[in-house]
Amino acid sequence: MNKNIRTDLAIEARELTGGKELSGVRVDTEKSDEMTISRVRIENEAGAEAMGKPMGYYVTLEVPRLKEKDPKLTEEVSKNMAEEIKNMIDLPADATILVIGLGNWNVTPDSLGPKVVSRLIITRHLMEIMPDKFNTENGIRPVCALAPGVLGITGIETSEVIKGLVEKVKPQLVIAIDALAARSMERISTTIQIADTGVYPGSGVGNRRMGITEETIGVKVIAIGVPTVVDAATMANDTLDMLIGQFTRQAKPGSDFYRLLQDLDKDEKYKLIQEVMSPFVGQLVVTPKEIDSLIDNTARTLAGGLNLALHPGISYEEVSTFLQ
Amino acid sequence: MNKNIRTDLAIEARELTGGKELSGVRVDTEKSDEMTISRVRIENEAGAEAMGKPMGYYVTLEVPRLKEKDPKLTEEVSKNMAEEIKNMIDLPADATILVIGLGNWNVTPDSLGPKVVSRLIITRHLMEIMPDKFNTENGIRPVCALAPGVLGITGIETSEVIKGLVEKVKPQLVIAIDALAARSMERISTTIQIADTGVYPGSGVGNRRMGITEETIGVKVIAIGVPTVVDAATMANDTLDMLIGQFTRQAKPGSDFYRLLQDLDKDEKYKLIQEVMSPFVGQLVVTPKEIDSLIDNTARTLAGGLNLALHPGISYEEVSTFLQ
Amino acid sequence: MNKNIRTDLAIEARELTGGKELSGVRVDTEKSDEMTISRVRIENEAGAEAMGKPMGYYVTLEVPRLKEKDPKLTEEVSKNMAEEIKNMIDLPADATILVIGLGNWNVTPDSLGPKVVSRLIITRHLMEIMPDKFNTENGIRPVCALAPGVLGITGIETSEVIKGLVEKVKPQLVIAIDALAARSMERISTTIQIADTGVYPGSGVGNRRMGITEETIGVKVIAIGVPTVVDAATMANDTLDMLIGQFTRQAKPGSDFYRLLQDLDKDEKYKLIQEVMSPFVGQLVVTPKEIDSLIDNTARTLAGGLNLALHPGISYEEVSTFLQ
Amino acid sequence: MNKNIRTDLAIEARELTGGKELSGVRVDTEKSDEMTISRVRIENEAGAEAMGKPMGYYVTLEVPRLKEKDPKLTEEVSKNMAEEIKNMIDLPADATILVIGLGNWNVTPDSLGPKVVSRLIITRHLMEIMPDKFNTENGIRPVCALAPGVLGITGIETSEVIKGLVEKVKPQLVIAIDALAARSMERISTTIQIADTGVYPGSGVGNRRMGITEETIGVKVIAIGVPTVVDAATMANDTLDMLIGQFTRQAKPGSDFYRLLQDLDKDEKYKLIQEVMSPFVGQLVVTPKEIDSLIDNTARTLAGGLNLALHPGISYEEVSTFLQ
Repeated sequence: MNKNIRTDLAIEARELTGGKELSGVRVDTEKSDEMTISRVRIENEAGAEAMGKPMGYYVTLEVPRLKEKDPKLTEEVSKNMAEEIKNMIDLPADATILVIGLGNWNVTPDSLGPKVVSRLIITRHLMEIMPDKFNTENGIRPVCALAPGVLGITGIETSEVIKGLVEKVKPQLVIAIDALAARSMERISTTIQIADTGVYPGSGVGNRRMGITEETIGVKVIAIGVPTVVDAATMANDTLDMLIGQFTRQAKPGSDFYRLLQDLDKDEKYKLIQEVMSPFVGQLVVTPKEIDSLIDNTARTLAGGLNLALHPGISYEEVSTFLQ
Repeated sequence: MNKNIRTDLAIEARELTGGKELSGVRVDTEKSDEMTISRVRIENEAGAEAMGKPMGYYVTLEVPRLKEKDPKLTEEVSKNMAEEIKNMIDLPADATILVIGLGNWNVTPDSLGPKVVSRLIITRHLMEIMPDKFNTENGIRPVCALAPGVLGITGIETSEVIKGLVEKVKPQLVIAIDALAARSMERISTTIQIADTGVYPGSGVGNRRMGITEETIGVKVIAIGVPTVVDAATMANDTLDMLIGQFTRQAKPGSDFYRLLQDLDKDEKYKLIQEVMSPFVGQLVVTPKEIDSLIDNTARTLAGGLNLALHPGISYEEVSTFLQ
Repeated sequence: MNKNIRTDLAIEARELTGGKELSGVRVDTEKSDEMTISRVRIENEAGAEAMGKPMGYYVTLEVPRLKEKDPKLTEEVSKNMAEEIKNMIDLPADATILVIGLGNWNVTPDSLGPKVVSRLIITRHLMEIMPDKFNTENGIRPVCALAPGVLGITGIETSEVIKGLVEKVKPQLVIAIDALAARSMERISTTIQIADTGVYPGSGVGNRRMGITEETIGVKVIAIGVPTVVDAATMANDTLDMLIGQFTRQAKPGSDFYRLLQDLDKDEKYKLIQEVMSPFVGQLVVTPKEIDSLIDNTARTLAGGLNLALHPGISYEEVSTFLQ
Repeated sequence: MNKNIRTDLAIEARELTGGKELSGVRVDTEKSDEMTISRVRIENEAGAEAMGKPMGYYVTLEVPRLKEKDPKLTEEVSKNMAEEIKNMIDLPADATILVIGLGNWNVTPDSLGPKVVSRLIITRHLMEIMPDKFNTENGIRPVCALAPGVLGITGIETSEVIKGLVEKVKPQLVIAIDALAARSMERISTTIQIADTGVYPGSGVGNRRMGITEETIGVKVIAIGVPTVVDAATMANDTLDMLIGQFTRQAKPGSDFYRLLQDLDKDEKYKLIQEVMSPFVGQLVVTPKEIDSLIDNTARTLAGGLNLALHPGISYEEVSTFLQ
């Protein structure tokens, strides 16, 4: 893929391929008034190559009005998200789940994971200490969680921290929450992706150096993410592409101009973009000004969905106490 | 000025005019290894028109390495800043100064003003309560401060809040601290502007609706600001301009292509940019990912400079206790 | 009153008088399963003297389970609180109300006021800018708010800041929110006091130096407070009193011991307590360890009640979006 | 020891024994103007029993003026602390050290550990990625760190998290930072304890359930702590003891009264105290109101000392950049 275009969303990767049918990629879409749920299955290596994403199952909830913080809509999204997660998890009621909040709490657009984790209903210890009150018969599952920080904060690869923890806690599943980079501004705080592939290297706002996948940590990993930024290079690239597209439509095929446009290759575009963004190359992100409050709202929605999915005996009303 | 280009810095406004001598604008520049200090005087209406900025005196400190948080350099910048402020203030040692921290503490890139105010050495009440210890003979001046929030938080125009306060406190001078929008990424957290013009409408990260000037609040206002964002439209515009510039250099004067480029007017560019940034038009900013920690560092530098400027009897070492 | 006993609650002041009927003090009490509402009217100077509180109307909601954060109970308390506030306010639907969040946001147990203010539905500016959408016909009232900080932060008496603001905004009513000191630990985060007397000097966690009353700021002031601390001297005093009480019950009237206990005067107790609490006399508070989260929950409950009381056209469900 | 008296400080435990010489306990004390350094060695089981603390080496720095935030004194304390730590650590220059910030960041007086960790100079990853710049020849040691949260936040025993991490990272030493409970108010934010015993169960503001010691995690543990609270029961107990002491001095030996005082046993005192502190028994702490800012200052001092001790090639001036 073009090195100026960065997206962590399977659904955007598919748009970039032109939206046509791809061999090895199955898509099914369900629309309602407020929400579009897309389920993308990348079934073989050919599909993975075409999409630039690992094989696996990706569910996306697109909810344009989610950033308006309407409590009814937030509830509906949390409930739909819970259903999708439950469908992806096939575990006994007493299986322990470890939730990992990826990202750096000191960097606003990278703080989604830690903020979700702080709103979860943590029960693993309560089920041990007070088994009469907290048990699977009351619809409670053993859930534990950690926000391990990032390499620059701890000096330790996040996957090392998680691996050590997994060996002690022995969960049947890890769920990793992460802030993502999208291609389109519209997706910020409006699109939720749930994937059974784990987190792969280079993804996330912080550009994770190592993956967090079944291969690296030894237990299945579901990744849940929401875009909080657009990479500034991606945005600049899109602006240039639109201008070039407009010129191309106006130029006569065969003319010097037409040829010039065709010749304008990716490296030249890349150099232009680099120059504009110096001296922060690779470090610049585009966000809405109100990103702080958008992140809080997104964290509440995700935590709501997770709490419902993990503890079938707890109602949305009870869950909402933990979301504040 | 082009409506896609936004800058709150006089020094950038001057660059946009092509850097040539302008009638009514005097500039003097002082360079050292780490710092360039520019002093721009806009002396008449012609100069103000050409610069797109009100008449007045603008001092800019450009310190490219400031964002590296080197303690020695931070100290040097605070001290230079203090000298420039002192030169702008011509007040008796016992004149009360009210510092206003503009901006929204809930919006990271707009939180500079409140963060500076929280690190100031506040003395007005101490000089009343303990005049033996806190007095002008010890080099202490009556300083008070408020971070009044923004219209969306209070429901009250910031200038109304300040006006009410000025009538009670009767300071001889108001100093307003604000986060700015720059044109160039390089300026984020590296450029400090001190101006005796007050804060004019439309400036600042939050796009202040009303000015805070001697006219509106009845007392002289010095504005101190540091860029914390580049408007995303500005960045997209700059990328386009560079592409068009490159094409123009390659095109034959007189050719269709050359004419097409000349004809590409601002409105078309504006439409392209709007399209890329929908649905957040006017709300998108480009920032470095680590803006949270850059803002903290900038706030410490400004508070250091202000504390030194306002209290001549307090040493940098004593001041540094308040900066944490 | 004993200088070791400190309470900002009228209901506790009454208990200290022995609970007997006092001339000039009328009390009516309404109990339900979860809540006791007491309405105390101090009708004349004799009553004020006996109670150690100014003349006025004090409503107290006691809700022992409030600190458990049960969402249903929180809703019920907010709604009851809204009714009590509405009964105290007799203003036209378009009268502007200014809410003041007293206290220091950097001191956890004193941060209640600012935290309530940050969750209010602020409408004064919206009613001016978008009168079609925000108007009294839709049950919206012009509300504005400020958290002015404390003297040590601003160098300005809080009452000065408010007075300046009142002169500009000209509200028909000021509502001041404050964290209180109680005598009993049980009251922390479980008791809400609403009084039409304003805030008097010496009250609040921060020991306000000047009152905020109709006399000082020129407009009627309703004070809403919740205890967040017990003064440590008060707690030590209560412990001593219980020991002395126990001894007294065991001693023979007329014995040396009995006389010794009778002679143990307040000054001696005061000296003992001083010694234990040195070197922090007057600065020590007793709080539950989890005060941070208790304050957040209390702030949400108060903001919920205020939003309902001030905007009759907004439902609890809509209000709850603002409480997070 | 009396169940109402709680201290995590060896130096206070020794005072409680009456200050007399104890077999198996060696004490050496070094005084200067601003600082007293005590070195207590508990050498055998008899000493451990008498002191109510495990065998080991405890260094205490008492600095009454530390809470005044004087930058010179802070520097001096950090440097002395660094020397004491270095004397306790006997490790090669390239030995990896893992620092653990114990405690709950959501509970102000328990947040010391996480706050120290966030100010450390973390180098383990840099020494791997950029060995030319970060190496032992430049006086840099591989340091990594984690603030693992508490059981109620993660659902995982803190010692489990650390054990998993230790098995991956294989550090030669763990340093655990913790907020402590003291007996005396004077010690809050003025006393630093460094012990080579690790952290034992029941200690710390959060009452750690399990120890973090060489036995539980398999590597030597140095514990560094500073008191941030006095247990409210301890304070109440001390107040009672002073009253009883005063009565005893006034009573005639042999009189009824004298006997009554002698008979007043611990259980009765305990019941009195319970009653005063209901319904928060065991959850109440006494702190100075300004605990938030005291904790920040203490965290800076400790982080300064640790950074100096762990990286001999980094100067105090460089270290101070990380302390903000």
